[in-house]
Amino acid sequence: MSGNSFGVIFRVTTFGESHGPALGVVIDGCPPGISLDESVIQAELDRRRPGNHGAAVTPRKEADTGEILSGVFRGKTTGTPIAVLIRNTSQHSKDYDTIENLYRPGHADFTYAAKYGIRDHRGGGRSSGRETAARVAAGAVAKQFLKEAGIRVTAFTLRAAGISCGSIDLSVIEQNRMRAADLKAAALMEARVEEFRRNGDSAGGIVECRVSCGNSVSEGNALQGLIPAGIGEPVFDKLDAELAKAVLSVGAVKGIEFGGGFEAADSCGSLWNDPMRNNGGGTVFVTNNAGGILGGISSGADIVFRAAVKPVPSIAKKQQTIDTNGNNADIIVEGRHDVCLCPRIVPVIEAMTAITLADMYLRKSTTPAAEQRGVLFS
Amino acid sequence: MSGNSFGVIFRVTTFGESHGPALGVVIDGCPPGISLDESVIQAELDRRRPGNHGAAVTPRKEADTGEILSGVFRGKTTGTPIAVLIRNTSQHSKDYDTIENLYRPGHADFTYAAKYGIRDHRGGGRSSGRETAARVAAGAVAKQFLKEAGIRVTAFTLRAAGISCGSIDLSVIEQNRMRAADLKAAALMEARVEEFRRNGDSAGGIVECRVSCGNSVSEGNALQGLIPAGIGEPVFDKLDAELAKAVLSVGAVKGIEFGGGFEAADSCGSLWNDPMRNNGGGTVFVTNNAGGILGGISSGADIVFRAAVKPVPSIAKKQQTIDTNGNNADIIVEGRHDVCLCPRIVPVIEAMTAITLADMYLRKSTTPAAEQRGVLFS
Amino acid sequence: MSGNSFGVIFRVTTFGESHGPALGVVIDGCPPGISLDESVIQAELDRRRPGNHGAAVTPRKEADTGEILSGVFRGKTTGTPIAVLIRNTSQHSKDYDTIENLYRPGHADFTYAAKYGIRDHRGGGRSSGRETAARVAAGAVAKQFLKEAGIRVTAFTLRAAGISCGSIDLSVIEQNRMRAADLKAAALMEARVEEFRRNGDSAGGIVECRVSCGNSVSEGNALQGLIPAGIGEPVFDKLDAELAKAVLSVGAVKGIEFGGGFEAADSCGSLWNDPMRNNGGGTVFVTNNAGGILGGISSGADIVFRAAVKPVPSIAKKQQTIDTNGNNADIIVEGRHDVCLCPRIVPVIEAMTAITLADMYLRKSTTPAAEQRGVLFS
Amino acid sequence: MSGNSFGVIFRVTTFGESHGPALGVVIDGCPPGISLDESVIQAELDRRRPGNHGAAVTPRKEADTGEILSGVFRGKTTGTPIAVLIRNTSQHSKDYDTIENLYRPGHADFTYAAKYGIRDHRGGGRSSGRETAARVAAGAVAKQFLKEAGIRVTAFTLRAAGISCGSIDLSVIEQNRMRAADLKAAALMEARVEEFRRNGDSAGGIVECRVSCGNSVSEGNALQGLIPAGIGEPVFDKLDAELAKAVLSVGAVKGIEFGGGFEAADSCGSLWNDPMRNNGGGTVFVTNNAGGILGGISSGADIVFRAAVKPVPSIAKKQQTIDTNGNNADIIVEGRHDVCLCPRIVPVIEAMTAITLADMYLRKSTTPAAEQRGVLFS
Repeated sequence: MSGNSFGVIFRVTTFGESHGPALGVVIDGCPPGISLDESVIQAELDRRRPGNHGAAVTPRKEADTGEILSGVFRGKTTGTPIAVLIRNTSQHSKDYDTIENLYRPGHADFTYAAKYGIRDHRGGGRSSGRETAARVAAGAVAKQFLKEAGIRVTAFTLRAAGISCGSIDLSVIEQNRMRAADLKAAALMEARVEEFRRNGDSAGGIVECRVSCGNSVSEGNALQGLIPAGIGEPVFDKLDAELAKAVLSVGAVKGIEFGGGFEAADSCGSLWNDPMRNNGGGTVFVTNNAGGILGGISSGADIVFRAAVKPVPSIAKKQQTIDTNGNNADIIVEGRHDVCLCPRIVPVIEAMTAITLADMYLRKSTTPAAEQRGVLFS
Repeated sequence: MSGNSFGVIFRVTTFGESHGPALGVVIDGCPPGISLDESVIQAELDRRRPGNHGAAVTPRKEADTGEILSGVFRGKTTGTPIAVLIRNTSQHSKDYDTIENLYRPGHADFTYAAKYGIRDHRGGGRSSGRETAARVAAGAVAKQFLKEAGIRVTAFTLRAAGISCGSIDLSVIEQNRMRAADLKAAALMEARVEEFRRNGDSAGGIVECRVSCGNSVSEGNALQGLIPAGIGEPVFDKLDAELAKAVLSVGAVKGIEFGGGFEAADSCGSLWNDPMRNNGGGTVFVTNNAGGILGGISSGADIVFRAAVKPVPSIAKKQQTIDTNGNNADIIVEGRHDVCLCPRIVPVIEAMTAITLADMYLRKSTTPAAEQRGVLFS
Repeated sequence: MSGNSFGVIFRVTTFGESHGPALGVVIDGCPPGISLDESVIQAELDRRRPGNHGAAVTPRKEADTGEILSGVFRGKTTGTPIAVLIRNTSQHSKDYDTIENLYRPGHADFTYAAKYGIRDHRGGGRSSGRETAARVAAGAVAKQFLKEAGIRVTAFTLRAAGISCGSIDLSVIEQNRMRAADLKAAALMEARVEEFRRNGDSAGGIVECRVSCGNSVSEGNALQGLIPAGIGEPVFDKLDAELAKAVLSVGAVKGIEFGGGFEAADSCGSLWNDPMRNNGGGTVFVTNNAGGILGGISSGADIVFRAAVKPVPSIAKKQQTIDTNGNNADIIVEGRHDVCLCPRIVPVIEAMTAITLADMYLRKSTTPAAEQRGVLFS
Repeated sequence: MSGNSFGVIFRVTTFGESHGPALGVVIDGCPPGISLDESVIQAELDRRRPGNHGAAVTPRKEADTGEILSGVFRGKTTGTPIAVLIRNTSQHSKDYDTIENLYRPGHADFTYAAKYGIRDHRGGGRSSGRETAARVAAGAVAKQFLKEAGIRVTAFTLRAAGISCGSIDLSVIEQNRMRAADLKAAALMEARVEEFRRNGDSAGGIVECRVSCGNSVSEGNALQGLIPAGIGEPVFDKLDAELAKAVLSVGAVKGIEFGGGFEAADSCGSLWNDPMRNNGGGTVFVTNNAGGILGGISSGADIVFRAAVKPVPSIAKKQQTIDTNGNNADIIVEGRHDVCLCPRIVPVIEAMTAITLADMYLRKSTTPAAEQRGVLFS
């Protein structure tokens, strides 16, 4: 399989190049009867779109209008494939004439040429970050499905350009242009990113993502077991393994860690293991170093992970590269590009997380535990 | 799909519980004509087996003899499924009677019960680390295949119990019981791990893995483009995304990072992008922050990643938990367990990496570039 | 998986309902460098479209214009997903108001309602034969690929409304409105179909399909071993098993047989086995009862199969049914419908055959035989 | 994928060659809590085993003892992979020395060599009918699962060596050595098969298979809607398409037809469409030309299909072939072989049908209709 599909039951296939006629996505396996219309999809597309994100984001205009082509009847999903089409409207392919014979450092130009022997150089073609618009449209559908199960996915910028959130307040994420969870830190991040921009350079960061149920996205480690326990398949398709693949499939991500993450390396079992308690209402985990997943299966605690985001590779500075004949060359990448991806990658990471959760939730239904089979068999 | 298979073309399916009659693996899609016999598999099983690994590893005896049941004829693979059987021989199931009604913290006991409504409590059943013996057998076959393409996979303990390798010398890995790449650091690690053991506690660490060609596993960042470029599928099945899933599917791993990894968060594009040069003999990358992968496709530089390994959850100290009726309880996990997983997880991470590479290598053959199709079509 | 995709490497996903905004298809895994433009796709869509097919076919107008949205650059495939969009333009949804609460006999109305609990009743929604337009678009791409390997797929009406071809002349198929391989029989078929139409009834038939190489589609049993031998995967994914699935997935098909087919039941081994001979130029099979496939793998002889096509279920006569409340009711299906599907199903069966062959051809490349691996590994 | 696995959720992978150490199967995705022990599997293996089947079947002895290696705990499935091992014990590999350099007509010898470039010639290796023992073991597990849903699968010999059952009595199938549904016809079949044997020849036949619920396997066309309606995925993975693949994947099968089958070709819509009626207790279909499947989804009527079985290719008569150097040669296949496969293929077709039904039943649970989601989400 060629890698353009994701998921087993809730299965997403994207298509389209940066400068072709259109991007799009086919979402197969969404259960019937879910409320869905174009406004739901558009709202997420608008979050990813360039626009009023301040210093970090390109001032390019992209309309990114999502049209539902199938799978919805009278405002409800029918169980058949949902296709969403996003026409490309404002491509300036001419801008890329100068790089037709050059490989941009940090981009996939060289490796696509090595793999396919043919390359659509305009805006990176299929390897462009623009492809993530299709993922975000699919993520909007996944979120609608998860909403019925009470599951919510929230990502935010934890660190950017060397500045970290001091505290975490999920209610402020959409109130600042860095999508940080701390307004004060957000202001510092923006200032620092603006410096990078003025220097013709770019900046990296860290995005954190939390999956929880109900309205109580908990902020500390004392989590209430609210997520349905039992989501995830053992051995190879562990929930954390699938989320790792989902998040690493986003171009700019260079690493992922769950719960306590890399700090595990310096910890010991007596501190790392999350004790379990009955708090009167049910089972809770006193800490959440596991990040809500044990043996690849959700425990009921919030699912928590962080992703490392590399600096935008398209920078205004002169760089060393080779041309398509293998000769040394210099390159200056023109055009107006993002400086720090964090604010725009937040909805993309949410989308991939929601798609993964929807898929694993439905896969759970294929392994009915003994007591549930009676129901399924009726 | 229930998560017990991995890979698309080179496809591995494991079965077996810690205390059942046997573990095993079916390897489907291995090309015909590869040299293979049981000694090749046994050598890797022996690396994973408990034994002479010093303080870090349990002194339990496990024979772990691999028997090839199919797919090999006169010392060569035939292209049909290769099944390997590993009988369980020294299980002390009685040891687990005391935990039949308790959930061990840090283990999958609670989540398996939530998922399946039935649980083989003996040694963790299917969630036991013993399942990785089957992966290692499959990895041995993958390595035989990769050897024909000149590809070599090498993992080692980079950090354990708070001690890091000072320098990297891949030739010493099998000379020390921590499988570290630095003999001096290895001695310090062992001493520190022994302290944890005496305290009834356990320790975490970091394992690094490198994939390269030829004999020149490079030690710095100035890598020679030797790996075949063009391995990896774009968009969702990026090579790094597949490796992330493969490695996170190993129970104790809590995070992964490629190339420069989480340092990307604090870097800038002008430093992070790896410049390309023609060194006279071909294309080289001056640095390797990308970890050998651009846009999800191998660039020719060494593939480099690191995995965070959590402390062994089975510790001798008393821990808080709940019983299978949901009541609070204390637990002391008995038996003799590993203290630090790093030395035994090294061959497991190599196996998962080799399986992933073999699969992606064969997937590459399904997208013949223009100039290669003539050959394939002949 | 929800059943809207077909193939493993050359993988096709269709979407769209009869009366929704559009139909479409995503073709993933087509190798790069294949010549492709919209005229190639349009030519096949035009063959399936209603129009000048005489008595057998509805006089409805469907524009069925295929637009390529992605995956093609400067007239060549790039190896990325090829999406084709076909807008619905002439739907008369009002025509279906009368059946909103009735289940049409012989259609999927009842079973879709049972499966999904929600149903787009307009023209059958997703279960409409209109969905096959998307398959035909994908089949056009598969045929372009196969053309490079010298493989050709030809289907024709062997029998319709009780009339069989007396002889087989593949050159006349597109010269008659029944797509029969015998002009005299075609005229009789048309006359008989017209009788069924006048009676408000419909007729079934048999379609034969042949896959061969070069220009010499052989007409007898003495076939020249020209198809590449070795296509097909053993055990479950036998070439005939995959073709059977492909062809039975076309709504109106009720059976399939390969080579000598059901006559095998009354034959004996000494007559049925196809003797092999060296004819000086290579291996030939003296007869072709096997239909070109042995043990699920192509032998080099022409691949030959026949499919049983049921009468069109939408007829003008009054029929017994139930309504959506489960009460008995009568139904008269209105509108102008095909009378005999054979001529329009011919390009659909060709499309499914071409898609299957393209996929199995590429799957073959994942099992390089010993002598070929050197090439693949280079 | 290499074709050794079948099914999406209830997924079966077989391994093993005719003359290797063992055959086996891994069954992944069986729900937890199903009663299972080795006697259940052995009973089905014994039905397939050569032995007291009279003239039609080889007098070879095969012990075929199935050992459960995993996935069962205290007599119940656990939801983890179930592996079953069948050791090969009575292989006479020497018998095949004479054919090491010859291709047997009607067998896969030639095509395996073409595909793999290496061939285990002993007894056909992987292409041997012996592989179906592993399928039968998996089918036994599928039948246990279906039993809980009240679904029963019954196949029988409808025609053999030119003799058809005159009437159908499912209760006599296991009472005669031809596994026919008519004792009188069975006696005639046996006599005719014995004639073929004496002539050094072999005979074909037709096997019919019915899937129903409860004890009332109906014998006419007036079926009671008892099967759960709604099983099957639309478009490509139609229930009949999946069954066609399953049945055609059995080596000797050359064709399949559902319900009225090939008679559809000569029928008309007004006779072919199955009228629907409310019989007071629910929906019934007055006839069953559809074979219980509409638009690829089960309607509730019995599922009915027939498979054409070719004559056993291993015959005592001299045949024309080529050797492995491509030269003309004669061959006489030695050893004691089946004369008519029907009685032994009956349990194999039941097994493939049961596996397909179990898989499609579980896939159904992934598309919860609107009214069922509340239940699944709880």
